[in-house]
Amino acid sequence: MGKKYSIGVDFGTQSGRAVLVEVDTGREVASAVKEYTHGVMDEFLCDGVTKLEPDWALEHPGDYLEVLQVTIPAVLKESGVSPDDVIGLGIDFTACTMLPIDKEGNPLCFQERFKSNPHSYVKLWKHHAAQDEANKLNEIARERNEDFLNLYGGKISSEWLIPKIWQILNEAPEIYEEAYKFIEAADWIILQLTGEEKRNSCTAGYKAMWNKRKGYPSKDFFKALDPRLENVVEEKLSTDIYPLGSKAGEITEKAAKLTGLKPGTAVAVANVDAHVAVPAVGITEPGKMLMIMGTSTCHMLLGTEEKIVPGMCGVVEDGIVEGFFGFEAGQSCVGDHFEWFIENCLPAAYYKEAQERNMNIHKLLREKASVLKPGESGLVALDWWNGNRSVLVDADLTGVIVGCTLLTKPEEIYRALIEATAYGTRMIIETFQNNGVPITELYAAGGIAEKDELMMQIYSDVTNMEIRISASAQTPALGAAMFGAVAAGKERGGYDTIIDAAKIMAKVKEKYYKPIPENVAVYNKLYEEYKILHDYFGRGGNDVMKRLKEIRKAARG
Amino acid sequence: MGKKYSIGVDFGTQSGRAVLVEVDTGREVASAVKEYTHGVMDEFLCDGVTKLEPDWALEHPGDYLEVLQVTIPAVLKESGVSPDDVIGLGIDFTACTMLPIDKEGNPLCFQERFKSNPHSYVKLWKHHAAQDEANKLNEIARERNEDFLNLYGGKISSEWLIPKIWQILNEAPEIYEEAYKFIEAADWIILQLTGEEKRNSCTAGYKAMWNKRKGYPSKDFFKALDPRLENVVEEKLSTDIYPLGSKAGEITEKAAKLTGLKPGTAVAVANVDAHVAVPAVGITEPGKMLMIMGTSTCHMLLGTEEKIVPGMCGVVEDGIVEGFFGFEAGQSCVGDHFEWFIENCLPAAYYKEAQERNMNIHKLLREKASVLKPGESGLVALDWWNGNRSVLVDADLTGVIVGCTLLTKPEEIYRALIEATAYGTRMIIETFQNNGVPITELYAAGGIAEKDELMMQIYSDVTNMEIRISASAQTPALGAAMFGAVAAGKERGGYDTIIDAAKIMAKVKEKYYKPIPENVAVYNKLYEEYKILHDYFGRGGNDVMKRLKEIRKAARG
Repeated sequence: MGKKYSIGVDFGTQSGRAVLVEVDTGREVASAVKEYTHGVMDEFLCDGVTKLEPDWALEHPGDYLEVLQVTIPAVLKESGVSPDDVIGLGIDFTACTMLPIDKEGNPLCFQERFKSNPHSYVKLWKHHAAQDEANKLNEIARERNEDFLNLYGGKISSEWLIPKIWQILNEAPEIYEEAYKFIEAADWIILQLTGEEKRNSCTAGYKAMWNKRKGYPSKDFFKALDPRLENVVEEKLSTDIYPLGSKAGEITEKAAKLTGLKPGTAVAVANVDAHVAVPAVGITEPGKMLMIMGTSTCHMLLGTEEKIVPGMCGVVEDGIVEGFFGFEAGQSCVGDHFEWFIENCLPAAYYKEAQERNMNIHKLLREKASVLKPGESGLVALDWWNGNRSVLVDADLTGVIVGCTLLTKPEEIYRALIEATAYGTRMIIETFQNNGVPITELYAAGGIAEKDELMMQIYSDVTNMEIRISASAQTPALGAAMFGAVAAGKERGGYDTIIDAAKIMAKVKEKYYKPIPENVAVYNKLYEEYKILHDYFGRGGNDVMKRLKEIRKAARG
Repeated sequence: MGKKYSIGVDFGTQSGRAVLVEVDTGREVASAVKEYTHGVMDEFLCDGVTKLEPDWALEHPGDYLEVLQVTIPAVLKESGVSPDDVIGLGIDFTACTMLPIDKEGNPLCFQERFKSNPHSYVKLWKHHAAQDEANKLNEIARERNEDFLNLYGGKISSEWLIPKIWQILNEAPEIYEEAYKFIEAADWIILQLTGEEKRNSCTAGYKAMWNKRKGYPSKDFFKALDPRLENVVEEKLSTDIYPLGSKAGEITEKAAKLTGLKPGTAVAVANVDAHVAVPAVGITEPGKMLMIMGTSTCHMLLGTEEKIVPGMCGVVEDGIVEGFFGFEAGQSCVGDHFEWFIENCLPAAYYKEAQERNMNIHKLLREKASVLKPGESGLVALDWWNGNRSVLVDADLTGVIVGCTLLTKPEEIYRALIEATAYGTRMIIETFQNNGVPITELYAAGGIAEKDELMMQIYSDVTNMEIRISASAQTPALGAAMFGAVAAGKERGGYDTIIDAAKIMAKVKEKYYKPIPENVAVYNKLYEEYKILHDYFGRGGNDVMKRLKEIRKAARG
């Protein structure tokens, strides 16, 4: 048997990316990207006429099919690999990204009569226009003491499935009525590839309030939201949920024509971008937390028991790796802090220096900040420029910086912001630990993990943990390909479990970050200060931030 | 009797300035400036060889004589006024600016044998190298429960006379020994002009711990500092103190040759720059506080009783206007905040806009900040970038900003800093009021008062008080000239009291600032937030700032 290959396709916010991977090594042989033709629609619908309200974010499902049509043939061509040797396909998607479909599985927006109705399109994860519905849902769930709230840090996000469906019911009842199903775009792709509607446990668990043991929330609860929603599960969703690592089906004749793959190629149930990255860095056991670090950070972690941890975004059985409880947490503002800082606070002299030295401004700042010793700036900040969705789950919290003097330099503030996000991560880690979910090692993926050595060293020093970095530049796509190999199974040249696949295919860089003891000692002291301020401003000691927001709201009329 | 004139000479940090004023109107007819030839010596002595330690700041007394020699003839010439018609001369000086002199009144630094000894020169007000002596003095005074501490907000500054003398004794006992007297530069100028050593009650009271009723601290106290200081008052100072508004004497033949004035011209006892500005804006009664606003702000106020007010820099009977108790308070960092902000935080895009519009960057920022409504930024800051010397008297406090978001703009931070200094002023005002010293109206002088309408309106709105602005661009020099006219007396065409002089000669601009009720309402709310944070960080609720300073110190080794 010659070399076997698997393909992973990662559907992001602006584009889709395919990676073709050698199954017995994990080597990434070829990759291809396709930007979405229609992009994110947040001002006008693709008809160019229909104006969208603020906070909307739609996509065109046809764009996803184009990704399959363009990128899979491209990686086959680039690698010279024969479709005969491609044993499996996996995909991952941003979530909750959802759409209404008809009985044949076609998006309602493909129908002529709905093509100018925004509610017939894909609602992207960052469609935030269902906030009213989310607020109402949370209020009712709290009043009814619904158990499931605890599994989601006490709050259902407006980004998730039920608020989005409810918004459709409220604003476009004809779409709600006409929809045969509402489905995650991830699962819809699988339906297109295999003809099977095999919904994955990850999006169902993290985004649709589904629980392996308890199912969805009760009819009573849905009825309390809106009598018309009483039977939403039976009428518009599916209770047929498959754990990650399952085989969804095989490439159909039609999908073979679209992708250039052979009919019968195994296809895994779909996955979510952040979650699929966990096995891709080799994490298939408890105690190892993966941080996916970009504009914000996702924290992913396996555990052996369902534990309620304050501020976590969700705990889902089989939600990351089958057989474990998958925990997710997040920091709402990481890279965004630094972008804000550079746009709003960086003096002209620094820009000039960067220009003269032909240097990226982030790099210059990192160079200057690297020279500083921990504690040398005398600053400590709270990383709440975009609220806190970590332990406190409070969007109304805002940023603080303490310790400014007339000698405070820009690089000191920049470093203080990095440190603040590291303290925020340590707070998450300790909250998990204190609630019975052990963490002993850190892994990181994403742009920051790859590029920012200063930041990663600070994280290692602040958390006093080693940090290993994903070796793949496209970690989610690699993870999806791994699940493709698992869908194929050992007999067809793949693997029987994601754990087996991870042993061979997952990779981290050789270089990893080790805490420096003298830095750890200083950061322990600074973290104590962070905690005091965190609790004072975040736990009711002084609700000044909320009052300032009210004053601001009144001032803006 | 034709028009009569008076001359005021204001000795600043870098230069001296003379103003010739029409006595019966207050009109400023001519002015002239002379930069000090040797400037501030803070790295090398004027011999170019002798290196100075950090925190030193010396001047050359010959430079002051040059000011008299150059500027007085210049204003006479420019105005065409005959010396016959100049009836009086007053001066003011930065303080405590002091020097050792011999029996003839000549500075020791004029002697060949001492010319390379830094301790023989003038120690400028901002000479901070006597901090060790100040710390020890405060410790001993506290241990001994010395009453006088209360009159100075509980703390004697290293800038003041006794620490500076003690430093000389410790580091250059030969200078201490040789010195016939230590004298304020202000009083030394008067000695040069009149041949009389008539020390003024303002510097004696605010800078030398002299009290009209109790005199200097006791021999016991000075002995406790250092046995060699036991008789410092008798041996090196003078107990002959004259209230402001007194005539010191008349221009001698020698001084007439120096200045071009006529022998016999009346000379007032000396004054201090901030204090002399009070009558210059027409304040000669209680309830009206003058703010002198520049890099830092001085607050001057008259009262009818000696009251102990937390954080005040001093209360001195006859210290501003004879017959009243003069109160002084201060904010250590006002304009400095904005300079820091512009140097360290202002993004390149704003610089570019200012350049393109050919606009001062402060002006551009003010333009952008002016558009904001009170409360609209959602920010509140503590104005402690240079510690707090107001109510808390704590140099180890540092700056805080609360309420940052990803939408926070530079002009919002800039405005928040302005507002923070206004809250700081309101805190000072309320502290006086709560301690039995009424304040009902504000006056302002200095660069900021003159130029920054946004800031002055914010101060008016935050304090809910009207603010009147000095009409003179050289308020201290005008005040000094007024005292010159009082020294001459009514019979010689001047005035009998500074109150009479102020009625005619003092001036404020026609335009004044009135609180805008809707702004006042919002700022009342924001000030409540400032107070909570002020007390939390400043009164022991959370000593994070001090701990951060300790951590910083350790980090810097």
